[in-house]
Amino acid sequence: MRYELYYWPSIQGRGEFVRLALEDAGASYIDVARERGASAMADLMQGEGTRTPPFAPPFLKAGKQVIGQTANILFFLGPRHGLVPKPEAERLWLHGLQLTIADLVLEIHDTHHPLGPTLYYEDQRSPAKKRTAEFWDQRVPKYLGYFEDIAAGCGGGYIAGRRLTYVDLSLFQIVAGLRYAFPRRMAKFERGIPKLVGLHDRVAARPRIEAYLASARRIPFNEDGIFRHYGALDA
Amino acid sequence: MRYELYYWPSIQGRGEFVRLALEDAGASYIDVARERGASAMADLMQGEGTRTPPFAPPFLKAGKQVIGQTANILFFLGPRHGLVPKPEAERLWLHGLQLTIADLVLEIHDTHHPLGPTLYYEDQRSPAKKRTAEFWDQRVPKYLGYFEDIAAGCGGGYIAGRRLTYVDLSLFQIVAGLRYAFPRRMAKFERGIPKLVGLHDRVAARPRIEAYLASARRIPFNEDGIFRHYGALDA
Repeated sequence: MRYELYYWPSIQGRGEFVRLALEDAGASYIDVARERGASAMADLMQGEGTRTPPFAPPFLKAGKQVIGQTANILFFLGPRHGLVPKPEAERLWLHGLQLTIADLVLEIHDTHHPLGPTLYYEDQRSPAKKRTAEFWDQRVPKYLGYFEDIAAGCGGGYIAGRRLTYVDLSLFQIVAGLRYAFPRRMAKFERGIPKLVGLHDRVAARPRIEAYLASARRIPFNEDGIFRHYGALDA
Repeated sequence: MRYELYYWPSIQGRGEFVRLALEDAGASYIDVARERGASAMADLMQGEGTRTPPFAPPFLKAGKQVIGQTANILFFLGPRHGLVPKPEAERLWLHGLQLTIADLVLEIHDTHHPLGPTLYYEDQRSPAKKRTAEFWDQRVPKYLGYFEDIAAGCGGGYIAGRRLTYVDLSLFQIVAGLRYAFPRRMAKFERGIPKLVGLHDRVAARPRIEAYLASARRIPFNEDGIFRHYGALDA
């Protein structure tokens, strides 16, 4: 089966967590909005041709099934492509980690959009500075400290053992994204999270991921996505 | 089996979505921090006695299994207590809705904490006003409009049909919470979402929920939780 991924065509955003899983799995998929335009995405969200319209991109179409929410899509793909261990308890543990990553992603987005997602960054520069300071003082140590502890238990492998999971792919993206958005802050901070950086490097060196990152399918980071580089926020 | 729910003892917060499910199911559970103090919660988060320490409350202990993240806990409880239909496609559809509710809950929290969760409301009154205005102008219509459309399809029953799901319970809590936090704004807004209000009323009238809401187990809304009533934000 060929999956249909629906996501904004010009950003990595939340869709990237799904793209990384599909790419590492070598799954057959079409990135619909990039290949056919964004109108098909709007149609599905309006409920056209589905009983289960998603709230927002990304969503995945697998045959007739439409699955919304990034972590939910990964939960669906995981067992179908060997991206999670089989036992239910393991699957829920990894899903809980993915949901914690989702919370972190929302807080990353809030650093440049503290007054709300529908306003421009340019109209909230000053609160963005304050939110970013709180984020790096309090939240990054809490989140990345948690994931560092988990990565420390994996002893040079992946977080669930010898086989990679979609959570490893997402943690790679978190490290890569924070490096892009906050190069100065992250350079300093990442000295304290060597296990997470090691995990990032192992993921980046996987043949399919390496090929994907070098391809035109990997959209460059930019200032419309989750991870945005604004010099004023990286002081 | 008797579940152990770990959550802050003095607020409804995210734990309330789990409490409502356990209560409606008539499940046997202990609200650990309320009955034994909060230190057991901290121990588990430090990884004591578990290979899978959760990031934050709420989390549920079921035998030896520790499950973090509200939506993940509900996903686990759903099929065990008849709170979701059995087919996987239906379960993922409802889980996607629950994750959308989780996103909404985070945005509700951000109305009083736009500069970050670790700062006091008193130190962010002015940005909170702006964020709240954006929330009611843009976000509430988008989220509740989406759920209104879904509730409209349920024809006087619940969103998945004749049987209640944990998503119905959570939507009840969203309506109840917005009424508490923003009585003036919500009174005006809810004229436009009659189906969702009807769903709220049907949930509230369920015997176990009615008994729970009248009991001391239901912690009153207050200004330490997700839904906080600040007059300045309800102008």
